[in-house]
Order: sequence, then C-alpha cells, then structure tokens
Amino acid sequence: MFVNSMMNMFKKIVSAVAILLCQFICLAQTEDSIAIKKISDEVLSNGNAYENLRFLCKKIGPRLSGSPQAQKAVEATVSMLKEAGADTVYLQPCMVPHWVRGEKEKGFIHVANKEKYLLHLCSLGNSEGTGKKGISAGVVEARSFKELEQIGAAVIKGKIVFLNFPMNPTYVHTFRAYGESGISRWAGASKAASYGAIGVMVRSLASNADDFPHTGVMAYNDSFPKIPAVAISTNDAEWLSKQLKLKMPLTASFTNTSKMLADTISYNVVGEIRGSEFPQQIITVGGHLDSWDLAEGAQDDGAGCMQSIEVLRTLKATGIKPKRTIRAVMFMNEENGGRGGEKYLELAEKNKEQHLFGLESDEGGFTPRGFGLEMSEAQINKVAQWKNLFYPYGVYELVAGGSGADVGPLKKIGAALAGLNPDSQRYFDVHHASSDVFENVSKRELHLGALNMTALIYLVDKYGL
Amino acid sequence: MFVNSMMNMFKKIVSAVAILLCQFICLAQTEDSIAIKKISDEVLSNGNAYENLRFLCKKIGPRLSGSPQAQKAVEATVSMLKEAGADTVYLQPCMVPHWVRGEKEKGFIHVANKEKYLLHLCSLGNSEGTGKKGISAGVVEARSFKELEQIGAAVIKGKIVFLNFPMNPTYVHTFRAYGESGISRWAGASKAASYGAIGVMVRSLASNADDFPHTGVMAYNDSFPKIPAVAISTNDAEWLSKQLKLKMPLTASFTNTSKMLADTISYNVVGEIRGSEFPQQIITVGGHLDSWDLAEGAQDDGAGCMQSIEVLRTLKATGIKPKRTIRAVMFMNEENGGRGGEKYLELAEKNKEQHLFGLESDEGGFTPRGFGLEMSEAQINKVAQWKNLFYPYGVYELVAGGSGADVGPLKKIGAALAGLNPDSQRYFDVHHASSDVFENVSKRELHLGALNMTALIYLVDKYGL
Repeated sequence: MFVNSMMNMFKKIVSAVAILLCQFICLAQTEDSIAIKKISDEVLSNGNAYENLRFLCKKIGPRLSGSPQAQKAVEATVSMLKEAGADTVYLQPCMVPHWVRGEKEKGFIHVANKEKYLLHLCSLGNSEGTGKKGISAGVVEARSFKELEQIGAAVIKGKIVFLNFPMNPTYVHTFRAYGESGISRWAGASKAASYGAIGVMVRSLASNADDFPHTGVMAYNDSFPKIPAVAISTNDAEWLSKQLKLKMPLTASFTNTSKMLADTISYNVVGEIRGSEFPQQIITVGGHLDSWDLAEGAQDDGAGCMQSIEVLRTLKATGIKPKRTIRAVMFMNEENGGRGGEKYLELAEKNKEQHLFGLESDEGGFTPRGFGLEMSEAQINKVAQWKNLFYPYGVYELVAGGSGADVGPLKKIGAALAGLNPDSQRYFDVHHASSDVFENVSKRELHLGALNMTALIYLVDKYGL
Repeated sequence: MFVNSMMNMFKKIVSAVAILLCQFICLAQTEDSIAIKKISDEVLSNGNAYENLRFLCKKIGPRLSGSPQAQKAVEATVSMLKEAGADTVYLQPCMVPHWVRGEKEKGFIHVANKEKYLLHLCSLGNSEGTGKKGISAGVVEARSFKELEQIGAAVIKGKIVFLNFPMNPTYVHTFRAYGESGISRWAGASKAASYGAIGVMVRSLASNADDFPHTGVMAYNDSFPKIPAVAISTNDAEWLSKQLKLKMPLTASFTNTSKMLADTISYNVVGEIRGSEFPQQIITVGGHLDSWDLAEGAQDDGAGCMQSIEVLRTLKATGIKPKRTIRAVMFMNEENGGRGGEKYLELAEKNKEQHLFGLESDEGGFTPRGFGLEMSEAQINKVAQWKNLFYPYGVYELVAGGSGADVGPLKKIGAALAGLNPDSQRYFDVHHASSDVFENVSKRELHLGALNMTALIYLVDKYGL
C-alpha cells in the first residue's frame, strides 16, 4: 500500500509537472506563433525582396566575380542593407579568381555529307580556351566515367569526349540527380585528358529538354593537360547521342577563348543588427552575390541574397529587437572559388568572433518546404520542436541536411548551420543558364522563403541552440 | 495472483497480435511502397501528360464550352485516352451554356483635362454586353459590399461601380483569398445593380500586380437589371483607386458585346479500365476539359485532364490490374455552368452505378503538397494511414478538405471524394488570364501531381474505402 501510495503521489507530481511544462511550452508557442504571424503578414504585405531582386537582375544583371557588375552589386546591396535598417554595413575585402569567358563560343557537329549542325554551347567556368583556331576531332561518347575507362586511351586519344550524364529524372529531389551527374562537369575534363582527349563537351546539368547550355564550375587536376571544356544543351546532347548511334563519320568542332586572369579584389557585404543582450553572439543569414556571367542569377542566388536582406528589414519593421547580433551577408565568389565564405571564416577566427548559427539560402527562391539542419543531434531535436510553428507557412521538414557552401566553413568554429530547402522541381531548368532571369521568380514563393527564414532566425535568437 | 497471470497472458496476447498486425501492415506497406516507386519511376521517366498538354494548349488552345475548340478537345482526348490504354472510351452528351465574348472589349478612364487612360479589361463570363455604343459614367469605388451599401443608391444610381476587392496577400493558401474576394466577381453585378449602377468593373482576382485582366464566371440575380460586368487588371485597379482619391472629375467608359446564346450540345469524355474483381465499383479521376476563351487553359485545367489520362496510362504501363473500374473523365463546362459534372451524376443515378471514389485535379499542375479529403472521418483516417507512402513524393497533407466542382455531385450517391492540393502560390498569377499558357507549366511539377494521383487511385482500388 505504501509503495502504491508513493507511486500514486509520484505519478501525480510527474503529471502536474508535465501539465505545467506543457502549459509553459504552449504559452511560449502561442507567443511565438503570434510573432511569426506578424513576421509573415509583414513579408507577404510589404516584403521588398522581390523589388530588390528586380533591381539586381534588371539594373545590374550577371555578376561574375571580378566583373564590373559584381562591383555594382556590392554597392547596390550596401544601399539595400542600409535601407533595410541595418545598424552597420561594411565590406570584407577578399581576393577572387577572375575568369573571363572571352568571345561568344562557337561549335558544330559535322556528320559526313550533311549540313553542319550548330551547337548551343558555352565554356564551363574556369575552363581554358581552345585559342581562336578552335579544335576539331572525332567524338567519343561516355555515359559514366566507368564507361570512359572501358573505352580506354587507345580510342580516346586525340578525340573530343562527349560526357552524356543525364540527370536522373526519377529522383524527386533534383539536387540528388545534380550531385550524381555533376561529376561530369566538375571533373570530366581532367578525366578525359587522362586518356588523351583534346577537349570535352559535357551534357548540360539540366532537368528539362531545351536549347540552353548551362555553365558551372569545373576544376583541373594538375597531373593532366588542361583541355578546354564546354557544356552543350540537353537537346543537343540527345541529338548528338542519336547521331553517334548511327555510326556515321562525325566530327565536332568548337572554339572558346575563355581564360583565367590574375586574382582580383572583391568583397563580401555585411549588414548587422547589433544584439541587445548578447551582441558578441553572431547569427548569420546569407546567400551569394556573385552569379554566372550568362544569367541574371535570379534564382541562383539573387533570391537568397534578397531574402537575407529581407530578414533584417522584417525584424526592424516588426519591432523585434534581437538579443544576439544578426548579420545578413552577401558572400562573394561562391560560383567559381568560394573565396567569400573562406574569408568570412578567416575574419571570424582572426577577430575571435562567437558564431552561434549560420543560415544560407542558395537553392532558389521557390516555395519553401523545409530546412536542412547541419548541427548536433541535440540541436536538431530542439529545432524540430518548432515544427508546428512553421507548418502554417508551408515548411514541414526540419531534418538533418546540408546548409550551404558559404556558411559551411563556420562549422570549423562550432557554428550550427542550416540551409533553406525550397521545392526543387524547377531549379535545374534555369540553373547557370541564361534562362535564370527575374521573370522566372514568383514573388509569393520568394517571400514565403524569406518569412520562414526570418521565423527561424527569430526562434534561434530567442532560444539559442 | 490468478488475476495477475491472466493480465499477463492478456498483455502477451495483445502484444503478439500487435506485433503480427504491425508486421502485416509493414509488409503491406513495403509492397505498396515498391508499387508506388514503380509508378513514380514510370511517370517521371516516361510520363506523357506534359506532351499531351502541349498538344491541347498549342494545337487546340482556348476551349470554352460550345466553341469549336471545345469540340476539338473532345476529339483529341478520345484519342489520348485510347493511346493511354483505356479499354473503353465514350462520350456523355450534355447541353452546355454557350456564351460568346463578341468583339475585343474596349475601355478607358477619362480624368478631367488629361489623356484617356486605356484599361486592360475583359468581360466576365456569362456577362451581358453594353451594346456597340458602350456605356460612360462616373465611378464609385467600393472595397466591400458593406462599403457599397454605406455609399447607397443615391450616390450609386447611374454610375459604374468599381469593386476593388484585392486578394488578401497574407493568406498562405491563395484559394482562401480567392474565396473571400471572389464574391465581387460572382455576385458584384447584381449587387451594384440593386443600387442602380449601370455597369460594374471588378478588380481582377489575381495575386500579382500586372496588366492581364482575369475573366471568370459571374451570375445574375433575376430581381435586378442585368448590367454589363468587366474585369480590369490589378495594375489598372491600383491606378484607378489612386486617381479616385484625388477627387478629380473622372469618367469610365467601356464597351463589350458579349452575350449568352442558346444552350448547345457538348460532351464529357470518359476512358475506362474495367475492374478485374469488382467492375461494378467505379473510381473516377478527372479534371475539366473546357477553359476560358482568353487562355490556353494550361494550369486551369488542361493540367488536371492530362494528369487523369496519365493515371490510366501509368496503371497500364506498370502492369497494375485494378480490381475496380477506373475511369478518367474529362468534364465539360466546369467554368461557366458545371453541366458536365451534373450530367455525370445524372447518368450514374440513371444507370444505378456504384461510385466508390472520385478524385479531381483542378487547382493547377504545380508541385503537389497533399490531398483534400471530402469523405467520412473513418475514411479520412484510413487514407491518413497511407501518409508515409506519399511522403517521399512530396505529399505530406492528407486531411479533410474540398474535392472539386466536377466530382462534387457524386457526394449525393455516397462516393468518397478527394482533390489534389498543389502548391498554390503561382496559380492566381495566371488563372483565367491569357497568361495561363503551356510555358507556365513545369513538366516535373505536372508529373509529380500525376504520380501521386496514380498512387492514391492504386491504394483506394486495392484497399477500398
């Protein structure tokens, strides 16, 4: 009996504590849901990210690292951050690679006795050029590096290798397909060169069938000759693959005059709201300001930059006074070097900054679906408890995942990281192609992303991690 | 002791049954997840909905009930259904309203001493015309029916009423805003006429700011004069509202020659796969084939029709042999009469058909997020158990909600109903406007919808409801 009554009392205490705890959590959640509704209403009614993006895309346009437009974008976002209400706006100088595309690329396929078939092509980022005379050779197609190896140096030597790695359409999350097929672009040139190829044509990493060539970064392995590398459109890749199956004599020719110049100066742009209680603790939210030279860089990543500025604007506009210091950062050079992210870490270490959290938006300004959480399990569990707060705003997935290339380096100094995960279906239709323009961004989708980012920053600032 | 050992035994039995049940469910879920992966791979690799939609939009185009294009769409979808592998394809004749827009509408605003401001406008569907001479009058703006009432007949009499009911941007689900502001379009003309207005200009039900007027159905209340009703673009509405605030003398003029002709014959198109075990039990999946005359009707609702045909094609292509009869139905006249849906019910009743389930896709071919379930609580609970099966394909919400205007009537004969709920952010940018074209549909988004619809049909067919 005594044991039983002890047990009963214990149960009552546990139950009372549970109820109190629940009430406490419920009260907090109610307060938070009210704050987040206010954030949402502010962004959806008065959000400025879309009009800022219009300016960035239409008045400045493509802004590859080292270009005059990249510099203009630096200046424009300084103004935008000030207008958004940042206490302090400053630049972080950093040296960036300075690659230039040169003249408009030309290329064609000549099948015996037929008219030349003009290719829609472009140099891959960081690629060397062919020189003005261009190159011509027979074509060897491979659908994987394994197949390339099987074909072997005897066949490949002196040829142009056509790496036809389609993005797997059956993956619902398109970034998975990009990750798999992307190796053709990143590493294809040196791989082909290792078997004696004189140039490489890569199928564009695109999820749709159209005529746009998609550029993107590649890197050379210094052990092999630095052969020129171009992307051809998915339609061209399909056509070429069919032609090759006919086994007719076929020659590919292309000319590109791209080249890498000496490193040049550029900047990260930082706007801060200083924390009221723990100003030394820093929360970063950012995207990358540079874009490929072919595109307006609307989805990649004008969207993420403008959303990050919108986070600051919305905190100010809703009267939220963050306890910690909130920084919106426009990182430079994500596309072909990652120097901005490295510089940001370098300065954080040098200045002995305390970085609590870094959030990146670099998967496009599409309707958000979740956040990828790159942090400890305990921290993931803490964030996951906020799930109900995000659900009304379309975000339902708060799970382990990648953050972003620019905030990524902060992991080294212990920051918890996250990345916005928007719907990925349309991203690779326009990614790194001249079709990545402002018109392909939806205002409501962009702003939904921004408001969910603001909500996450608000919660992390309030409760820590 | 005896009680205790009985309890223990009972617990063990319960636990053993629970484990068995769990294993059974797990096995079934594994089998189902394999089947749904097969469905997904088939649609994402070989899906035909997108190319069928291209044909419907680009080779046929706008297809308002009673138009020659509506007839062409009937014929085209007969072919598509046969090609998709339907056992039987047939037409259900039904009489439909035959409204015609007449000549291109014209309208302008004349502010004292200024140049005429040309309006982007169009007749609302089913509206009467002004006659060739058009109408001119002063303008009274109202932002709600309550405001209209407060202004009153003394001011409104002889005027053109401007109903400026913006869609509320703070609602995350845009259909909610459409539902609220939509009353201006549906009922605004007769409401204004009740106070003596001679015409009505309605702000387009659009979520973005642009120059497209958005049409859509309206209805007259026979108690009041049938005054002409037009929609103006959201940009024009904003401009006009500003002008009116300046209190300068201002006149609106517009001409439309739209009119309602006598009812004419048209058809629902039905394609069936006959059930192998319970052929008398019918599962319907459909969209509406008619569209507004201004648009290609790509998102509204070519998408839903092509997805429904894709359901049949995918069942055939993956070798799934449904136990019940699966019907893909292209309903006619959803936009301005709903006669196809009514006819479908009428024939179901007449032929004493047993309708188990009806699924509609009429909210656009955007990335799916869930299904709205219009069925009993027990049935909702049953469907909700399949949640994990849908999660990998982007569908995470299986909750009570509306189905669709065409399958809706089947409720009367006890069918469980559901509607595909895609992401709603972009729908009202193009809805009922000339911007609702094929180019604004994403292949992957459209096909993701189709595969989730097929998965739901597969599960309902297998397990009943």
